[in-house]
Amino acid sequence: MPVKLVQSTPSAYQYPLLIKQLLLTPLAIAPDQEICYQDKRRHSYRELRQRIGRLANCLTTLGVDAGDTVAVMDWDSHRYLDCYFAIPMMGAIIQTVNVRLNAEQILYSLNHAEADVLLVNSEFFPIVEAIAARLTTVKKLVLLNDEATEPELPAAISQALHYAGEYETLLAAADSDYPFADFDENAQATVFYTTGTTGNPKGVYFSHRQLVLHALGCAAALGGANGNGRLHREDVYMPLTPMFHVHAWGFPYIATMLGLKQVYPGRYQPDVLCRLIVSEGVTFSHCVPTILHMVLSHPHAKDLDLSGWKLIIGGSALPEAMAAAAFKRGIDLFTGYGMSETCPVLTLAHLSTTDMQGSPEEQAVLRAKTGLPLPLVDLRVVDADMNDVPHDGRATGEVIVRSPWLTQGYLKAPEASEDLWAGGYLHTSDIGNIDAAGYLKVTDRSKDVIKVGGEWTSSLQLEDIVAKHEAVQEVAVIGVADAKWGERPLALVVLKADYVGQVTEHAIRNYAAHAIEAAGVSRYGLLLQVSFVKHLLKTSVGKMNKLAMRANPQALRD
Amino acid sequence: MPVKLVQSTPSAYQYPLLIKQLLLTPLAIAPDQEICYQDKRRHSYRELRQRIGRLANCLTTLGVDAGDTVAVMDWDSHRYLDCYFAIPMMGAIIQTVNVRLNAEQILYSLNHAEADVLLVNSEFFPIVEAIAARLTTVKKLVLLNDEATEPELPAAISQALHYAGEYETLLAAADSDYPFADFDENAQATVFYTTGTTGNPKGVYFSHRQLVLHALGCAAALGGANGNGRLHREDVYMPLTPMFHVHAWGFPYIATMLGLKQVYPGRYQPDVLCRLIVSEGVTFSHCVPTILHMVLSHPHAKDLDLSGWKLIIGGSALPEAMAAAAFKRGIDLFTGYGMSETCPVLTLAHLSTTDMQGSPEEQAVLRAKTGLPLPLVDLRVVDADMNDVPHDGRATGEVIVRSPWLTQGYLKAPEASEDLWAGGYLHTSDIGNIDAAGYLKVTDRSKDVIKVGGEWTSSLQLEDIVAKHEAVQEVAVIGVADAKWGERPLALVVLKADYVGQVTEHAIRNYAAHAIEAAGVSRYGLLLQVSFVKHLLKTSVGKMNKLAMRANPQALRD
Repeated sequence: MPVKLVQSTPSAYQYPLLIKQLLLTPLAIAPDQEICYQDKRRHSYRELRQRIGRLANCLTTLGVDAGDTVAVMDWDSHRYLDCYFAIPMMGAIIQTVNVRLNAEQILYSLNHAEADVLLVNSEFFPIVEAIAARLTTVKKLVLLNDEATEPELPAAISQALHYAGEYETLLAAADSDYPFADFDENAQATVFYTTGTTGNPKGVYFSHRQLVLHALGCAAALGGANGNGRLHREDVYMPLTPMFHVHAWGFPYIATMLGLKQVYPGRYQPDVLCRLIVSEGVTFSHCVPTILHMVLSHPHAKDLDLSGWKLIIGGSALPEAMAAAAFKRGIDLFTGYGMSETCPVLTLAHLSTTDMQGSPEEQAVLRAKTGLPLPLVDLRVVDADMNDVPHDGRATGEVIVRSPWLTQGYLKAPEASEDLWAGGYLHTSDIGNIDAAGYLKVTDRSKDVIKVGGEWTSSLQLEDIVAKHEAVQEVAVIGVADAKWGERPLALVVLKADYVGQVTEHAIRNYAAHAIEAAGVSRYGLLLQVSFVKHLLKTSVGKMNKLAMRANPQALRD
Repeated sequence: MPVKLVQSTPSAYQYPLLIKQLLLTPLAIAPDQEICYQDKRRHSYRELRQRIGRLANCLTTLGVDAGDTVAVMDWDSHRYLDCYFAIPMMGAIIQTVNVRLNAEQILYSLNHAEADVLLVNSEFFPIVEAIAARLTTVKKLVLLNDEATEPELPAAISQALHYAGEYETLLAAADSDYPFADFDENAQATVFYTTGTTGNPKGVYFSHRQLVLHALGCAAALGGANGNGRLHREDVYMPLTPMFHVHAWGFPYIATMLGLKQVYPGRYQPDVLCRLIVSEGVTFSHCVPTILHMVLSHPHAKDLDLSGWKLIIGGSALPEAMAAAAFKRGIDLFTGYGMSETCPVLTLAHLSTTDMQGSPEEQAVLRAKTGLPLPLVDLRVVDADMNDVPHDGRATGEVIVRSPWLTQGYLKAPEASEDLWAGGYLHTSDIGNIDAAGYLKVTDRSKDVIKVGGEWTSSLQLEDIVAKHEAVQEVAVIGVADAKWGERPLALVVLKADYVGQVTEHAIRNYAAHAIEAAGVSRYGLLLQVSFVKHLLKTSVGKMNKLAMRANPQALRD
C-alpha cells in the first residue's frame, strides 16, 4: 500500500525499543528502591545500574562482543537481574539455562545456542563437570558463588574452560561506566530451550522490541484490573517461576520498568519463601500450580498471613480445588496463559468487581479460567481449517495467536518453525474454548487430549472432579488404549497419607461418576477408570508429564 | 554494532504496531460496552467496528486512498471516534482541525496539509463558507449533522466543493466489511496544527507506531498508580480536551484499547457536561485548568457529586488554589505534562498512598506538580550547554525529552524541525526543575519567563501566591520592560465581581509581598506590580496567551 511514511528531520531521535530504555523511568522516579537477594544482600536501583555497567565491562574484558551469547546457570538472584539487562544491553544474547534439565540436555542446549561464556552457580558444578570436555563453543567460565569461601574448581572444568573469576569480585574491580550504544530493536536479546517431553529441547528467542512490548502490554493489562490481581508501583515483587524459565514470565523486566521493590529468593525452598513473603512484605508473585501447592502444604505456611498476596497462576491449568484452597487463605489469585514460545503472557483472567462479589465457590471457578487477551493479542480458537469456533463457552478448537512478542521460530530448526507458524498464526497446540464474555478456557494440551469414541474429552474437567474427593492429594487423568472406544480416561490418583488403605479405587470412581452426571460433563467421562499410584510424573518445570505417564501408567503403582 | 537480528521463519507474522490492533482486545473482551454521544445516541464496540468498516468504504467511494488526507471539523463525537480509527486504518491520514482557530488559519492548515476530503459539522459552515473558494486541495465535503433536518449548503460551499452527502446516511448505505490491510507501522496516521501565538500554525504528525506506543505507555503508567488517578477497565471515560487537540491527549485510543465505556459530550457546554457526568457515571476525564474552572464555577456544578471523578490536568500549570478547590469537591485530580509535539503525555503526577495521607493543603501542592516520567520517557532538565542541572527541586533549566512518541519534525518546515530537535533531543521550550523524588515541576514556558536582574523568576509561583487572595478570580503574571531591572513582574488580576471597588491594587501587592517573603521565593518577586484588568487573553485552546498580554497589558484594563 502506498502509505505515507513519517519524515524524520535529520536531528530527530528515532527511538528504538531497547531493554536499556526500561531503566529510564525507575532511575528517574525510584532510584533508591530496593532489590533484595534472600536476606543476603540488598541494593538500590542506582546500584543496579552501576552493576550493569560493571558486568558489561567484565564481559567485554572476557572478549564478549555484540552478537555473542552468554549463558547463565543460577537460581533466582540479584546477579540474574544484572544479567537480564547487562548482556542484552551490550548487544549480546543471554541464554537462560534450565538447570532442571539433565546434563545431556544442558550440553545440547549450550552447544546448539553456541554460547561463548558460561556464568555458573557453584551448585551446578557437578553438571558442568560432566559436560565441560564436550562443550564445543563455551571457552570461559565465571563463578557465581553464595558461599563464604570460594569453592575449588573441579579439574574436569579447569582443564576444559578458562576460569575468569568470581562474579562479585570481578564486578567490584570493574568500572561502572559503560557506553551502552543504540542498535536495531530487532536484535536478539535472549534464547532458552523449551522442555519438550520427547526429543531434543528446542531453542526459542526474543528480541529487544519483543521484550519491551511484552513489558508494556503486561503492565497495561495488570494495571487495568479493578481490584483482583492489580499490579501497582507500591507492590513488592518476588518471582516464583524461575528466571531460567521464559524470563520468569517477563516480570523482572516489568517490575524494573515500574520501579518496584524486588525480592529474589534463590532456589525455591518453601521455608525461605514463607519467610521472605513476610519479612520483605511480598505482595506480587507468579507460579505454576505445583509451586503454590508446595508453599501451601509446607508446615511454616500454616500460620502465615497470605491475605492480599497477588498471585498469577500459569504454566498448567489451575485445579478448581486448589483455587478454592488458596482463596480460603486470602490469596488474591488469578490465572495467566502463555507458553515458552509466547514470551509468555497472552491472557490474564482478572475478576471484575461483580465477579468478586460471588461466593467462594463461584470465584474459584472464575479464578481457574485462563483469561482475557492482553492488549494487541489476537487470540483465536479454530477448527482444523483455521475457522473460528463459536464463542459459546462449549465449542473447542486449537488456540492460535498473533502478538508483538512471539518467537519468530525455533533456533536452527526450519521445519519445526514452519509447523509452529503454519498459516501465519502461532499454533499453541492447546485446546480450548471462549465464552460469551471473551474468557479463554484451555481445556487440554492437544498432546494429552483424550479422544473417546471419536470425541475429544477434557482430561482437566475430569481432574477437577476427582480432585474434589476428600481423599485425593493429586490426580492426573490420561487416555489409555481401549479396543471399543479407541481411548478411555484413566485417573492416576495419589491419596493423602491418612486415607491410604481407607478408600478404594471403586469408591473414587463411583464418586466421580455421580459428579460427572451432576455436572453434565460429556457422557464419555463416565468411562473413567481409577488407579491409585505412589506418585505422578512431572516435567522439569513441574508440569504434569502426561506423555510419560501414558507410556507406562502401571509403573507408577510401585 | 554487529548485533544478531532475530530470524523470522517465512510463515511467521511480523506484527506491525498499527492502530487497528488496538481494537483487538476490546472486541474480544468488551464487545457490548457502550459508546455514547451526549444523550443523543449510544452503540456498542461491535457496532463501532462496523461503523469503521462503513466509513472506510464511504471514503474509498469518495476516492480516498492510502496516503491521502481526510480533515475533520467536529466537536467531540462518536463520529470523531469512528474517524480516529477508520481513516488511519485505511492507510490515510486524519487531519484534526482546530475549530477555534480563525478562518484564515484553518484555510492555511488545510492547504498546507494538502487535505483531500473535509468532514464538517454544519455548525462550522460559516468558516467553510469563508474559505471554500480558496481551498487548494480539498475537493469533497461530507456533512456531520446533529439537527433533525439536513441544513442547506451555503452557495459558496456548494460552488467550490463536491457535496458527498450526510455522514450517517452515507454510513447506513455502506458495507460494514472492509479489508483493513497491514502496512508499515511508520505510516503517518495523524496531522494537526499547533496554536502558536505568532506566525502561521505549524503541523505536527504522528505514526501508527507512535500512537500505539503512546497508548501502551500511558496505560502502563495510569494503571500503575496505587489509588490517586488510577485508570482501570471499569472506568467511564469522557474527554474534556477537544478531539481536535492532540488526539484528545490520546485517550480515545487508550480508552478503546482497554474497552472502557466512552462518553462524547459534543461542544463543551457546562450544563451538558454536568448532566453527563452524573447520568453516564463518568469517572475519568482530562482537561486544561480553564475547563475545570468553567465546570466548577457553573451553577449546576454546585450540587453535583464530583467525588471520585479522576481528572488529569495539563496544558498549562495548575494553580494550587484551583487544585485545592477541586480537591475540596472530592475530585481526584492530578497533573500531566506534555505538548502538541509530544503526542502529548510525557509525565503524570500520581500521588503515592503516603502523599494521599497529607493535609488538603499539602496534597494541593503535590497535585499541582507536573509529574513523573512515563515508561520509556527520557526527560532531562538542562542548561544552555545541554548539561543536566542538579535534581534538587531548585535548579532550573530547559526540559528536553526523548520518547517513542514525539513528532519527528514540523510538516514541511525543515528549519523549525531542526530547531525542535537540536542535539537529538526534542526541546520543549519549557523551564522547570526536578526534585530528589524525580518529580518534574514546570515553572515557566520559556516564552513567558521573566528575567529580573538577569535571573529567571517564576511567573507561575507568583501567580499561585496572588491567586490565593480572596478577591482574585484569575491572575496572569507577565514581565514588563523596566529600566533598572530589565524586566519586572506584573500581575494582571481579574477580581471576583463582589470585590470590584472593594479592594485596591495596592492591597493585593502588599498581600503578595508578605506571602513572597514568607514563602522564601526569589527576592525579585518583591518587585511585583499589580494591575486590575477586565479579562485575560487566552489562546484558542484556553491557555494564557502571555505573549499577547505582554504586547499591550494596558489594553486589558478597558
